Amino acid sequence: MNTRRDFLQKVAASALILPLPSWALSAPKYDGPVLRVALMGLGGYATRVADAMRDCKKAKLVGAISGTPDKLTNWQSKYGIPEKNCYNYQTFSNIRNNPDIDAVYITTPNSLHHSQVLQAAAAGKHVLCEKPMALNAKEGAEMVAACKKAGVKLLVGYRMHFEPKTLEVIRMRNSGEFGKILFFQGLCGFRIGDPTQWRLNRELAGGGSLMDIGIYAINGTRYMVGEEPVWVTAQETKTDKVKFKEGVDETIQFQFGFPSGAVASCLSTYSMNNLDRFFLNGEKGFAEMQPSTGYGPIKGRTNKGELTQPHATHQMVQMEEMADIILNGKQPIVPVDGEEGLKDLKIIDAIYLAVKTGKKVPLNL
Amino acid sequence: MNTRRDFLQKVAASALILPLPSWALSAPKYDGPVLRVALMGLGGYATRVADAMRDCKKAKLVGAISGTPDKLTNWQSKYGIPEKNCYNYQTFSNIRNNPDIDAVYITTPNSLHHSQVLQAAAAGKHVLCEKPMALNAKEGAEMVAACKKAGVKLLVGYRMHFEPKTLEVIRMRNSGEFGKILFFQGLCGFRIGDPTQWRLNRELAGGGSLMDIGIYAINGTRYMVGEEPVWVTAQETKTDKVKFKEGVDETIQFQFGFPSGAVASCLSTYSMNNLDRFFLNGEKGFAEMQPSTGYGPIKGRTNKGELTQPHATHQMVQMEEMADIILNGKQPIVPVDGEEGLKDLKIIDAIYLAVKTGKKVPLNL
Repeated sequence: MNTRRDFLQKVAASALILPLPSWALSAPKYDGPVLRVALMGLGGYATRVADAMRDCKKAKLVGAISGTPDKLTNWQSKYGIPEKNCYNYQTFSNIRNNPDIDAVYITTPNSLHHSQVLQAAAAGKHVLCEKPMALNAKEGAEMVAACKKAGVKLLVGYRMHFEPKTLEVIRMRNSGEFGKILFFQGLCGFRIGDPTQWRLNRELAGGGSLMDIGIYAINGTRYMVGEEPVWVTAQETKTDKVKFKEGVDETIQFQFGFPSGAVASCLSTYSMNNLDRFFLNGEKGFAEMQPSTGYGPIKGRTNKGELTQPHATHQMVQMEEMADIILNGKQPIVPVDGEEGLKDLKIIDAIYLAVKTGKKVPLNL
Repeated sequence: MNTRRDFLQKVAASALILPLPSWALSAPKYDGPVLRVALMGLGGYATRVADAMRDCKKAKLVGAISGTPDKLTNWQSKYGIPEKNCYNYQTFSNIRNNPDIDAVYITTPNSLHHSQVLQAAAAGKHVLCEKPMALNAKEGAEMVAACKKAGVKLLVGYRMHFEPKTLEVIRMRNSGEFGKILFFQGLCGFRIGDPTQWRLNRELAGGGSLMDIGIYAINGTRYMVGEEPVWVTAQETKTDKVKFKEGVDETIQFQFGFPSGAVASCLSTYSMNNLDRFFLNGEKGFAEMQPSTGYGPIKGRTNKGELTQPHATHQMVQMEEMADIILNGKQPIVPVDGEEGLKDLKIIDAIYLAVKTGKKVPLNL
């Protein structure tokens, strides 16, 4: 009875014949418009994005901007980027004359985002910018205004806004499956290594853990609760004043209140391993995710059971979706535009103020 | 081959022959001293304690104190309590002349603990008191002093201090298996029902959720982190001012800092279902428990795997251990004495002060 199955199993085992993935068989060939992207700042994260974009259909890596000539040479061969689409920071403004690049994705240290977004917008290119979008709300507002004036889109690298398990939790919340939302907890942190990296340099990072990893708890609070907070309190703790210098936060606890009466409790830290937990609690149900914001796979469950949405590389999905937003005017479920980035910056300003004053800071988002 | 096993299975299935529990076969007969206890305040929790004490060997329920004559009659028959060991609040002071009662366990509303502990101590009886031990640190200090002066022991109903999975986590922490402790989170709450109950009456409860369920997060923070906190901040949120009147807190978030640099983040609430989560994070490992303080079974895991210590009725174990403390001078792993209760009261005072002032309140425990 099992002859045919046995035979196929033996063939597969002996010859290592692997079936094609289902998407390769089922996905229709894409012949729509393609967003042609240049990456600015060729560090570790840019490499991750570039690798992920190999699987994109709607977005294509076509250019690179770096201050290091060797990196540009390397990227040209590694990703098939033509030399004419490569720039350094002195030649970058010439990108305005390059009709083969639609958008610039900025993955440089935080303190550079503001001026670089303004430059890219002035060159008439759409701008994708890593989070935090800037160092503070003042910078952020200027960036939003500059992109609006230039008629280009400004999008922020909120990859979780496209993550399937995250979107399922948001769908359940919106459909009332958790009932009234009461509480959110976001614990985000990792133990940071090399003390010489830019993330621990206040001039480049604009702060410490809060700018880098705490922003996941800030942004996560907003997309998980589904409301804008109206106050924040915050407490800073520093155990290592050598590694975490003046203005570089090691650990900050912060709390939010919402108009509905929901509350949130968050932790941002550079001194704890693998802290990546979300917990959303409602009157009728809950969601818990752990890991909740890492590169995945995200894992989680709700009162209805385990979240089973399949993982896809976050950066690949983000770039596909952002291409759709820019090229086709698609509306994402959770915004990823400059206004969204600006809200997080207003909260970051308020958290640092709350740490400094020890007082509850009102928010008006 | 399987005939004998099949036969035994059939016998078991058909005749419902259940084996004796292992402890019934292995436990040695106890012929040491027995703590003879009278319960004061015959409400739901007293009934739970009385039922649990049926399985105690070192502690025995022998008396009852209540303002309701019917309850006393009922308890006499239900628990085999002699009438001569029953008192109301007018006759209670006569207990001093009763040589058949060693200790009084007070499970009345919070605001009564102070005067009742003082009365029991004055009558020369050891005192067990439910938590919170009193309404504030001033009362608590008076109770500690009164019991010391009277030469009686004062113990607080910290049942988690004897819970096997909790003790295993504490053992692992003490042995360094989590490394340096960095963070604790205690989320404690439930959705409270009947708005007319004493727990929602400020005069009787002395507060709201913080006194009743938040104290598990306060005390849990201390026994999980293994240090005394040096500051606390707190934020109150109230969504229902009819149910939660002036002075009765619905939801309070509070945060601690420790000398080591560890931090803690807690939630106390009367408006969320089944919120009972502990998370302890160290440099080398973690523990998470959920439920963490309910009547059990407690469930949890650490970086080493699931916690498998067997459940036993908390109130039974507590009474056995407290009998050992009083009769035999046993030292519990985590203190349960009046000084321990007083520390939690100092924290409760500080949390209410922090809510009121919006400021970080230093702690000196």
